[in-house]
Amino acid sequence: MQRQIGQVRTEQVRLFDRDHPLVLAGGEQLLEVDVSYETYGTLSEQRDNAVFICHALTGDAHAAGWREGDRRPGWWDTMIGPGKPLDTDRLFVVCANLLGGCQGTTGPASTNPATGEPYGLDFPLLQMADFVTVHRALLAHLGIERLLAAVGGSLGGMQVLQWALSHPEQLDNAVIIAASSRLSAQNIGFSAVGREAIMRDPDFHDGRYTEHGTNPAAGLSIARMLAHITYLSEEAMAAKFGRRIQDPETTGPGFGVDFAVESYLRHQGDTFLTRFDALSYLYLTRVMDWFEPFGEHDPRAVAEAGTRALVVSFDTDWRFATEHSREIVRRLESARVPVSFREIASVWGHDSFLLEIEDYHETVRAFVDRALERTHETVRTSGTLRGSR
Amino acid sequence: MQRQIGQVRTEQVRLFDRDHPLVLAGGEQLLEVDVSYETYGTLSEQRDNAVFICHALTGDAHAAGWREGDRRPGWWDTMIGPGKPLDTDRLFVVCANLLGGCQGTTGPASTNPATGEPYGLDFPLLQMADFVTVHRALLAHLGIERLLAAVGGSLGGMQVLQWALSHPEQLDNAVIIAASSRLSAQNIGFSAVGREAIMRDPDFHDGRYTEHGTNPAAGLSIARMLAHITYLSEEAMAAKFGRRIQDPETTGPGFGVDFAVESYLRHQGDTFLTRFDALSYLYLTRVMDWFEPFGEHDPRAVAEAGTRALVVSFDTDWRFATEHSREIVRRLESARVPVSFREIASVWGHDSFLLEIEDYHETVRAFVDRALERTHETVRTSGTLRGSR
Repeated sequence: MQRQIGQVRTEQVRLFDRDHPLVLAGGEQLLEVDVSYETYGTLSEQRDNAVFICHALTGDAHAAGWREGDRRPGWWDTMIGPGKPLDTDRLFVVCANLLGGCQGTTGPASTNPATGEPYGLDFPLLQMADFVTVHRALLAHLGIERLLAAVGGSLGGMQVLQWALSHPEQLDNAVIIAASSRLSAQNIGFSAVGREAIMRDPDFHDGRYTEHGTNPAAGLSIARMLAHITYLSEEAMAAKFGRRIQDPETTGPGFGVDFAVESYLRHQGDTFLTRFDALSYLYLTRVMDWFEPFGEHDPRAVAEAGTRALVVSFDTDWRFATEHSREIVRRLESARVPVSFREIASVWGHDSFLLEIEDYHETVRAFVDRALERTHETVRTSGTLRGSR
Repeated sequence: MQRQIGQVRTEQVRLFDRDHPLVLAGGEQLLEVDVSYETYGTLSEQRDNAVFICHALTGDAHAAGWREGDRRPGWWDTMIGPGKPLDTDRLFVVCANLLGGCQGTTGPASTNPATGEPYGLDFPLLQMADFVTVHRALLAHLGIERLLAAVGGSLGGMQVLQWALSHPEQLDNAVIIAASSRLSAQNIGFSAVGREAIMRDPDFHDGRYTEHGTNPAAGLSIARMLAHITYLSEEAMAAKFGRRIQDPETTGPGFGVDFAVESYLRHQGDTFLTRFDALSYLYLTRVMDWFEPFGEHDPRAVAEAGTRALVVSFDTDWRFATEHSREIVRRLESARVPVSFREIASVWGHDSFLLEIEDYHETVRAFVDRALERTHETVRTSGTLRGSR
């Protein structure tokens, strides 16, 4: 029987306040920033076994284990736990909701202390570097100076890349999965249509929907349905749904749910409403659109810091196709950063990064095991050095 | 200087009425059906040079030439005209708006003679066969019994396939471009999201928007923006827009139009509103979703009738990828229908079928030239036979 993390709790901490406001990369300030996070495993005495999980666009701090009342475990429970690729018997794993989110970390739906009302579109525009700033503050709060690794998929992988480029001295290893260092026109186009659906929903009220007692539910669920098409490969959709009729007994042609794929998308759109905020969707997708870190950071600093990278793509991912990962690999390698690159075979498209795919999990496991070994070698070496003094 | 068709006119004719209602494939009746159409070139004395153009989802009868006030010629003016692949010096070309459309042929926005109000969602659901029925009635009206060819791209190609399968005796040749004989789950998914955007627009009013003096403009333009992403290849979008900023002087990050690709999509969404009806969008996309003609028709009848087919796909088309065309080819060839198949190299994705791509145009030209030659051989042969009697 596989051991489990068991019960977990999401904590929340105020990391920035009026006395110590958060200064954003764009120059604006946030006077209050709360961050929600979870941890799994035990921090070693040497504080050298910490792994930070960067979540994707609609993820949250609850990456693994079960919270009270959960009907399913955290979103990456297959990856994180005792004996799992990110092995909590040996690692101390931290996951936190990102800035601009809506799952316990301050975002546009939070109360603006200057007005007592939700920020709405007065919330400042964010950059990927801001996510890193806030999560670095969390690490400082937890007494963690260095990370054995930062690990993330999709937007999370982009944050890991930002972290590696702007603060390589803090990262021994960067695991960048199904990510991109610059979105394509098509990527931006899909995001733009999703945002348009949200902002043109009359219930959006220029972002003041909470005050109006409404929610741009139609727009947000349309954005989510659309995004879901891009998360699955065409092959996966064919295998999962094909042209199957949703209810052969009663369904004839009409404008409701005729096909199973329509039922799936509608369900994804509807359930999303219960857990995600439309403004967070706008802010976070816009951060992705503008992300282009190699224009701002010299990757030679990564090589100098000794940071190593694992870059993983999936062969049927067309949201961030392998070419996006190859570009990251090229940029890092040309700066002599040690990079392992793997394109994993999987029918599941972009969603693969969330799934338990043996080759993928073993790749992450092997990379992290080797990272731990290197750390222990260093400890032994310095121990010997100290002993010989 | 290339010669042009010059000025053309869209005609309209009532083809079905209370005395001769249109009986649809689904069993329902339409008491009044008007059809708008254009013709180019001259019908030969033998009436053996007629080519019918089936238009795509949002096309219309105005395929070529200039109407009074036009700022651009018909949508397939590069394909149709004197000396062009569909050479109006030798061919008589007919193009008509399809049933359920909104450009002069009866559709859901037309007046329901039973109520005096627009049909709205009371318009009966359509099938691909209904498009063929109405266009066959137009040919009868024009005194044309047989077609040298039916030619169409995308939905138009699907109509040509339907025509070939259900009335092969009427078609000497079928030219099926960038089409599909059964949409994939992904194809249906994209259509479903577009329809959802339209139907969840509060201005849709259950299809009674005309009576309410509204138009589901937001929903319809979102559907169109989304569709446009699928019409272009990722490569074409990268070449056309890349990550270019729309207005580098004034544009910083925000939630308006930051990137050129956003400007393009928004423009496509906006201009679409001036020429297309939301209900037609629902009805026509649903016909495509359910289209699966090889389940209903035996392609051996096509072989027996002597109908030949040209099937064309484009290598970067991911709306209806080459695999869709190959499936059509496989089905026809296994029934011993003579099929020419060409996958054309083009960066422009699905939109390629509308563009002037040399290899593509020459392929269509050669096929149609050969078709004309065969007709003349038949005429000469029967002339000789008659002469020898």
